[in-house]
Amino acid sequence: MEVYKKRQQKVYSYLRKEGFDIAVLADLEERRNPSLRYLTGHPADALLFLSSRGECFLIPWDENLAAELAFVDKIIPYNSYKRSFSIAVQSLVEEWRLKEGSRIELSGKFPYPSAVELISSLPDMEIICRDQGLDSLLLKLRSIKDKSEIQSLQRACEISNEIIQGIEDLLADKRNTLRELDIAQYIDSEARTRGAEGTGFETLAAAATRSFAIHAFPSYGSSLIGERGFSVIDFGVKYRGYTSDVTITLIRGPLSRLQQKMAEAVSEIYELAISLIDNGISTGEIALKIDEAFARWGFKMPHALGHGIGLAAHEAPFLRTEDQNSNIVLKEGMIFTVEPGLYYPEAGGIRLENDILITSHGLKVMTNSRIIEI
Amino acid sequence: MEVYKKRQQKVYSYLRKEGFDIAVLADLEERRNPSLRYLTGHPADALLFLSSRGECFLIPWDENLAAELAFVDKIIPYNSYKRSFSIAVQSLVEEWRLKEGSRIELSGKFPYPSAVELISSLPDMEIICRDQGLDSLLLKLRSIKDKSEIQSLQRACEISNEIIQGIEDLLADKRNTLRELDIAQYIDSEARTRGAEGTGFETLAAAATRSFAIHAFPSYGSSLIGERGFSVIDFGVKYRGYTSDVTITLIRGPLSRLQQKMAEAVSEIYELAISLIDNGISTGEIALKIDEAFARWGFKMPHALGHGIGLAAHEAPFLRTEDQNSNIVLKEGMIFTVEPGLYYPEAGGIRLENDILITSHGLKVMTNSRIIEI
Repeated sequence: MEVYKKRQQKVYSYLRKEGFDIAVLADLEERRNPSLRYLTGHPADALLFLSSRGECFLIPWDENLAAELAFVDKIIPYNSYKRSFSIAVQSLVEEWRLKEGSRIELSGKFPYPSAVELISSLPDMEIICRDQGLDSLLLKLRSIKDKSEIQSLQRACEISNEIIQGIEDLLADKRNTLRELDIAQYIDSEARTRGAEGTGFETLAAAATRSFAIHAFPSYGSSLIGERGFSVIDFGVKYRGYTSDVTITLIRGPLSRLQQKMAEAVSEIYELAISLIDNGISTGEIALKIDEAFARWGFKMPHALGHGIGLAAHEAPFLRTEDQNSNIVLKEGMIFTVEPGLYYPEAGGIRLENDILITSHGLKVMTNSRIIEI
Repeated sequence: MEVYKKRQQKVYSYLRKEGFDIAVLADLEERRNPSLRYLTGHPADALLFLSSRGECFLIPWDENLAAELAFVDKIIPYNSYKRSFSIAVQSLVEEWRLKEGSRIELSGKFPYPSAVELISSLPDMEIICRDQGLDSLLLKLRSIKDKSEIQSLQRACEISNEIIQGIEDLLADKRNTLRELDIAQYIDSEARTRGAEGTGFETLAAAATRSFAIHAFPSYGSSLIGERGFSVIDFGVKYRGYTSDVTITLIRGPLSRLQQKMAEAVSEIYELAISLIDNGISTGEIALKIDEAFARWGFKMPHALGHGIGLAAHEAPFLRTEDQNSNIVLKEGMIFTVEPGLYYPEAGGIRLENDILITSHGLKVMTNSRIIEI
């Protein structure tokens, strides 16, 4: 596929410009890195080697799956290297005949001990492991969606909207008997039968008694949804690897004074966020104004205003004030969530989350989440 | 809860013995570490600081959830440290009045760049980041289940067995209309309504056309299950954090000669594994004999014979030959899978996986997976 070749070319150019001979990335069970899928199409569980000569080798855990899904120059099963990272690197160093003084960029996601081990096992090579190199380039590339990525996310958002409508219909039909589990299974089933890979993360469906946690634990169970107070439903539809991320809150009165104030604040601040977001505005500026708006209500939101979505459920850009990486200027092709929320043990939680695309002339709200009074 | 206090005490003793003042662990979205839940009860998304003086501080992403679930001496919201790892560490260093020359153990799961940054930001401290220290101790402790852990896994296995029986009943009832999705949702629903937290990992339900991958991708969809050939169903039930892991294969004939041979080999080798496993035998010895048995059939299994289960779906001990860490002697309280399997694009995949507890007098097979002819 042309799109993967193009992305690999960008890495080759980067390597040449920065004077590296090869780059090494990994996606493993307890250490995910969706950039592998971005570069190759292979969904998970593999090492990836890219050489400045323009070659891309995948070392997958499952060679049958790689043969079906990966667009790379060569597939070498991880078993060939006895499932050892250092044997794999040393073999590739030999295969590519890397000379003394060659420069290798190791993804900054590698743990300290394995990076140190590799550095000492290849004393003649210069090994660089940092966040601000290739990882950062890939996150930046991934933060601006190309045409095919926008199409995938558009489809994920369409399916999400059909599901939101479906949940409203279900609630109208049987508002007193729906369990968290029923909602979660409805979402999963609708997503998969419409051609999605599945959900982008474990669906959160939290009845009013449990919605005070930002991410309910367990994520759903047998409690009835839509009881008095706030019930929160947070889900993503993953289409061709790309996930939407939406949250609807169901409100059932009568509300306490605190709940009433929370609902008004979140609705108002959601509208404020939508009015602030524009091509060319910085994320930090928006997040700061939102923090100030919450403060005027006497509230403090315990999480970011939003985050990019794509191959990961949380990726750049991040809309928050706390982080030096968050002061990014919004650009055409960025897709991210806007999700003001408030959570108090005595009142429950309320969040409204939609997905936003930045276009050449402003923003497009791609999803139809809303606060639903039932 | 007494059990968490006891586990924390073991870390304090370790720190004193090794001459460390504090230890730092993290469980984050792209870098999971179930040892945090093991030590505190808090399920995910937090930093954990333990001091040799006998104090345990949790820095959670969600303070409401921590207030409900964590058994620690102090909870400090991550937001108090502007969600910055280095600010959190430096504040704790001040709060605990660590003197020049204090020794800090950083979990070996920290990425190289953040470990390097921390080391340079605390030049007066000695910071050690390694696999063979605290991480290794915790993996070892977790590999021998205590009474409460065995009870949780026993319940997870009981529910799994009820689900396996339920799937057989479903198949008897409507073997020609069940989709992968129906099976996956049946498992999820039965698990949660019986009090489980959910499934321990995304259920794999792969129709005969897709079962050639060790882990089917996507994990389940709309294909009909139980068509001619091998259909594979792999799932775990997570009870109080502890997950079972079982696989049943549905066989529907007529089979090709290769399929016939695969089924015979996997059944025979499963029985061989069960006969080899015993208190006091090493994992490497068992795995080697299994590799040899597959070789006599002319086959090679592309994954390990088994792995420990617990708070993680894959943990120590590992039953494989390739890895220096796998040559572990089986001991009372270890719980792990035995899962011989074979996979060929032209034949599909077949796997039989059960969960095994090592007792003082041998092994106990805790689950009832089997190869089911339909």
